[in-house]
Amino acid sequence: MSVSSRLQKLGITLPAAPVPVANYVAHRRTGNLLVISGQLPVRDGKPAFTGTLGSKTISPEDAHAAARLAALNVLAQASAALDGDLDRIAACIRLGVFVAASAGFTRHPAVANGASDLIVEVLGDAGRHARAAVGCASLPLGVPVEVEALFEVR
Amino acid sequence: MSVSSRLQKLGITLPAAPVPVANYVAHRRTGNLLVISGQLPVRDGKPAFTGTLGSKTISPEDAHAAARLAALNVLAQASAALDGDLDRIAACIRLGVFVAASAGFTRHPAVANGASDLIVEVLGDAGRHARAAVGCASLPLGVPVEVEALFEVR
Amino acid sequence: MSVSSRLQKLGITLPAAPVPVANYVAHRRTGNLLVISGQLPVRDGKPAFTGTLGSKTISPEDAHAAARLAALNVLAQASAALDGDLDRIAACIRLGVFVAASAGFTRHPAVANGASDLIVEVLGDAGRHARAAVGCASLPLGVPVEVEALFEVR
Repeated sequence: MSVSSRLQKLGITLPAAPVPVANYVAHRRTGNLLVISGQLPVRDGKPAFTGTLGSKTISPEDAHAAARLAALNVLAQASAALDGDLDRIAACIRLGVFVAASAGFTRHPAVANGASDLIVEVLGDAGRHARAAVGCASLPLGVPVEVEALFEVR
Repeated sequence: MSVSSRLQKLGITLPAAPVPVANYVAHRRTGNLLVISGQLPVRDGKPAFTGTLGSKTISPEDAHAAARLAALNVLAQASAALDGDLDRIAACIRLGVFVAASAGFTRHPAVANGASDLIVEVLGDAGRHARAAVGCASLPLGVPVEVEALFEVR
Repeated sequence: MSVSSRLQKLGITLPAAPVPVANYVAHRRTGNLLVISGQLPVRDGKPAFTGTLGSKTISPEDAHAAARLAALNVLAQASAALDGDLDRIAACIRLGVFVAASAGFTRHPAVANGASDLIVEVLGDAGRHARAAVGCASLPLGVPVEVEALFEVR
């Protein structure tokens, strides 16, 4: 099944690729490796979620949704890098998932699954990735999660 | 000297590769690069160490041992990815070492050395790696350290 | 314009490559990829800046300068890896920028720009990179920022 068919079946429309908030580019390619800059859960240029896990400023459910949105923006960037053709992704090699969390928080994997699940739903087996998920003191714009990615492309 | 000889000489038995705690895979390969997901200091599926550096919940010595155990799990994953033959590792290119630490903590490198030393002891010169070591607000399951890796393999 | 001409025009002298503070190497190459270990804002072996963003222990301006210095040390390491010839850098693929920050801090991108701007100023278009910038509870030696890099080299 093509990625576009899968997106349609899931009822997902890729957002426009967010513009970097600073002096860097959203994606960079070397050989068949495509690196996507850390993406935030922004919608129409604004944070759709803010808060820190473990501090009662955001629920685990909302943080999971934020991770999903950040991963959707990762795919939007990949699409922009690949002339709109996500079928050129051979594999998602790695996700780096940074979760804004207090000192006592322990459930980063559950939050990060919001990103991992979206990538696998959209890319199928090609989306099965290695991952590092860690807790950050804070993140840009006060968001609860940031997701970066490494893809193998063709 | 082969890696298996070195392991024997060191008296180290590789543990079984830990099962990922969420929806991702423990390792992913692209070309001759092998990415290992962030590994925790778990033993038999349970955290062997918990605590945050600088908060008196874990000693530097125990955190060093935790980093060593996380790195051992990195090697266990690499072994699983390479059909049990760690001699197929041409080089450890990079370790990412995430240390759960309070705001005032400054000795992350000493903790991270637990991981770096183990990798070099087991892999020899091939194990000499680049590294980033940083302080995290918290880590999955409350562990003091998480280690991810990038290997060149053959 | 060559990198050395650009450095001269900018009035920048590359420092000596800092010696790793622990048991790892400062750079590692695989194929045409060059990984640089996390660099700190050190000068002559000592931290030139310390403090945590959002805690009034360092100003955003000083943190920006610290990020610039850490990125300069990244270039010093790349130079050491490339026999002093930075024109062998085909592209800066990724910067990882770790900012020591309190829970409420939101302006990590502005700090990280200190690193990104320096890389682009020195390398020109080849310096345009993907980036992840996140907030850390603490960093080695109490510095406000750590920068790691991935380059494509020839």
